[in-house]
Amino acid sequence: MRHRVVIVGGGFGGLAAAKALRRAPVDVTLVDRQAHHLFQPLLYHVATGILSQGNVSPPLRDVLRHQANASVVLAEVGGIDLERRTVECALLDWSWEIEYDTLIVAAGARQSYFGRDEFALHAPAMKTIDDALEVRGRIFGAFEVAELEDDPAKLAAWLTFVVVGAGPTGVEMAGQIAELSRHSLPSNFRRIDTRTARILLLDGGPRILPTFGEGPARKAARKLESMGVEIRTGTLVTNVDATGVEVLTADGGERIEAMTKIWSAGVQASPLGASLAAQAGVETTRAGQVPVEPDCTLPGHPEVFVVGDLMSLNGLPGLAEVAMQSGRHAGQEIRRRLEGKTEPRPLRYVDLGSLAAVSRYYAVGERKRTQVSGFVGWVFWLVVHLTFLTGFKNRTSALFHWIISFFGRSRPERTITAQQVFAREALASSPPAASRPGP
Amino acid sequence: MRHRVVIVGGGFGGLAAAKALRRAPVDVTLVDRQAHHLFQPLLYHVATGILSQGNVSPPLRDVLRHQANASVVLAEVGGIDLERRTVECALLDWSWEIEYDTLIVAAGARQSYFGRDEFALHAPAMKTIDDALEVRGRIFGAFEVAELEDDPAKLAAWLTFVVVGAGPTGVEMAGQIAELSRHSLPSNFRRIDTRTARILLLDGGPRILPTFGEGPARKAARKLESMGVEIRTGTLVTNVDATGVEVLTADGGERIEAMTKIWSAGVQASPLGASLAAQAGVETTRAGQVPVEPDCTLPGHPEVFVVGDLMSLNGLPGLAEVAMQSGRHAGQEIRRRLEGKTEPRPLRYVDLGSLAAVSRYYAVGERKRTQVSGFVGWVFWLVVHLTFLTGFKNRTSALFHWIISFFGRSRPERTITAQQVFAREALASSPPAASRPGP
Repeated sequence: MRHRVVIVGGGFGGLAAAKALRRAPVDVTLVDRQAHHLFQPLLYHVATGILSQGNVSPPLRDVLRHQANASVVLAEVGGIDLERRTVECALLDWSWEIEYDTLIVAAGARQSYFGRDEFALHAPAMKTIDDALEVRGRIFGAFEVAELEDDPAKLAAWLTFVVVGAGPTGVEMAGQIAELSRHSLPSNFRRIDTRTARILLLDGGPRILPTFGEGPARKAARKLESMGVEIRTGTLVTNVDATGVEVLTADGGERIEAMTKIWSAGVQASPLGASLAAQAGVETTRAGQVPVEPDCTLPGHPEVFVVGDLMSLNGLPGLAEVAMQSGRHAGQEIRRRLEGKTEPRPLRYVDLGSLAAVSRYYAVGERKRTQVSGFVGWVFWLVVHLTFLTGFKNRTSALFHWIISFFGRSRPERTITAQQVFAREALASSPPAASRPGP
Repeated sequence: MRHRVVIVGGGFGGLAAAKALRRAPVDVTLVDRQAHHLFQPLLYHVATGILSQGNVSPPLRDVLRHQANASVVLAEVGGIDLERRTVECALLDWSWEIEYDTLIVAAGARQSYFGRDEFALHAPAMKTIDDALEVRGRIFGAFEVAELEDDPAKLAAWLTFVVVGAGPTGVEMAGQIAELSRHSLPSNFRRIDTRTARILLLDGGPRILPTFGEGPARKAARKLESMGVEIRTGTLVTNVDATGVEVLTADGGERIEAMTKIWSAGVQASPLGASLAAQAGVETTRAGQVPVEPDCTLPGHPEVFVVGDLMSLNGLPGLAEVAMQSGRHAGQEIRRRLEGKTEPRPLRYVDLGSLAAVSRYYAVGERKRTQVSGFVGWVFWLVVHLTFLTGFKNRTSALFHWIISFFGRSRPERTITAQQVFAREALASSPPAASRPGP
């Protein structure tokens, strides 16, 4: 029997690991609870009507179709038993175990509501395709309802969009809602002026884009403000409900009436991390990440790699690039071992820098001490995202959608399902009025 | 105050009517319960992973954005009061009335389960974007589960797809599932051979494509059979449940185990038709359509047009082309009246023929006594659908997706949401086994 490698998670880390094992004499089993890989950095384009879900989420088994040693299993991983070397899987009412010789855990992180999970109902996250379609439905649905609203206060609430968390996703999301309301939608509506929509970007920290340098962050903030986004740093969100958020600043508390809220404030590593750490006798970080050896293995368990967002190593951030490089490293280490090279090699992370697209034609970025912003940054952003998007057809299709959206300012993927429009808690639990005159 | 035209329904009929009123001195209000128009003839491409929902469902307000005299209202129309000349609207907990001077009712038809609405849970229809995404989830989800199934009988049920109703939608759907299982998916799976999937096309009538001539229908049947589709005509579906269907033929009853069922067997006009007919003192057809005067107006109510699938006139079929021509006619009649031309003109329907795409590169079609089939038919199909698809960007985007799908046999839009995979009644209510060994 060939050496069995099980990979938990088909995100950037898991997929890179699988691909690195392409020519290795192993059987690779990739387990994910979704049938698709997800190009998460572009999820906000799905939410704002630029891209279709297919553009950013190729099926894992299609990505790996030519890799004969890899198979994909759709299942939720409920646990990992380091002693018995098994992964517990579940799908529907089934439950079963998969045995491994080497395990790569790339289970990633999910959105964190900092212990207030009830916020999720009112402020969806931006972590999955379901999230993105939900957010799309709420954004475009809010404009639809606003067009019919007569009560000025309630109209204002329907036209207020609150983005919580000013990391790259929050910044890009706020920028896109501003683009939408200022440029894409005005001609579509007759009663409301969508350009009056308020977009608030809230963050508890002192500035936006905390992982970027001061320079790019300041430029991004200026650009966002020029587009009409209100940035409120030093602002803690203390409550979220169907019709608004409550915030706390140095000046005291305030309530903001807003029907649409989007949460991109923090991440919490997969609960598999805590289980792995407990079994290995190490402590997770506060965000639930597992400390690993320099070669990305679990301490005391050279047969287990932990990569990507779930891994804590040298303070590397939760970036797609870190996940890809650590996943690839795990795959390469397994290959080397099977070739008899037992000396573990540390992960050498090559910082390719960060980029955030604030609006069309405007991105900020930095790599080591080089900074770039504006149109040049945006061209970088475009090239990088086209390069890393999985698969030729997704690349060309995304490029096509971008041409429509950026040159034409149009949104080719605005469709929201009936379920998204009508069954929404935010819309249903707080109808603005019981009866109203017709528009 | 300008003449107020209210249009109920933003399908082919309603949208054509609105556009025909573009330069008329009227205020047009288009009411639909969906925010988008739907290019229904291509819905099966959304269900089978070829097109995104955005490709076939442009937002109504975006389509009409340059038509200053038209506004769009998202609302469910609960009733029409011919005496008071009002349309009852509802959205969320709101309800209100819209007054009209002239009304165009283009509320269309929905799927009919012939009185057995409980079938809908197990055999979704193909009438809305929600339907198409649901069917997409069931088709691709069935292959995912099949890959893990060990029990041969249950595996066979997961790999059996039943399409009920052999009109154009049923034929095209069966053909696409065959294409998928025979050509697009085999390389994606390791344990199952997707080419062994059974695809059954059931119809109670004596042959498929009853609205087509014998020649094209026979050719389509031969092509489908060559692709592996089992055609069973003269077969009545007597029951549908989570794991299969029961059928009755001249030879007796039979049960077919199939986890995936798709219903395209019949249509029932919108219930607004019955209400209109009752108020006007006429009788609807069995399918709930409203008989109209030759100019498409409701008998005794020249201020009310009934167009499209809801209209019964000279036996015209429920085709997009009929809806477009009757909607346009209604709009033109209103313009003429406002120009003082009071003589009503009858609808002169120009039969542009019918087309059904059985597989890639193969379609059958006919126009009057001319028939076309095979590759030439398919080129016709392509040109016609590209021409009628709403909006330049949808046309180019769809063309791009078709190039990927038809030349590459790939499916760019296979993404199914977690909700679609895991929350499905068909998957959840009948888990194949309580516990199983790992694959």
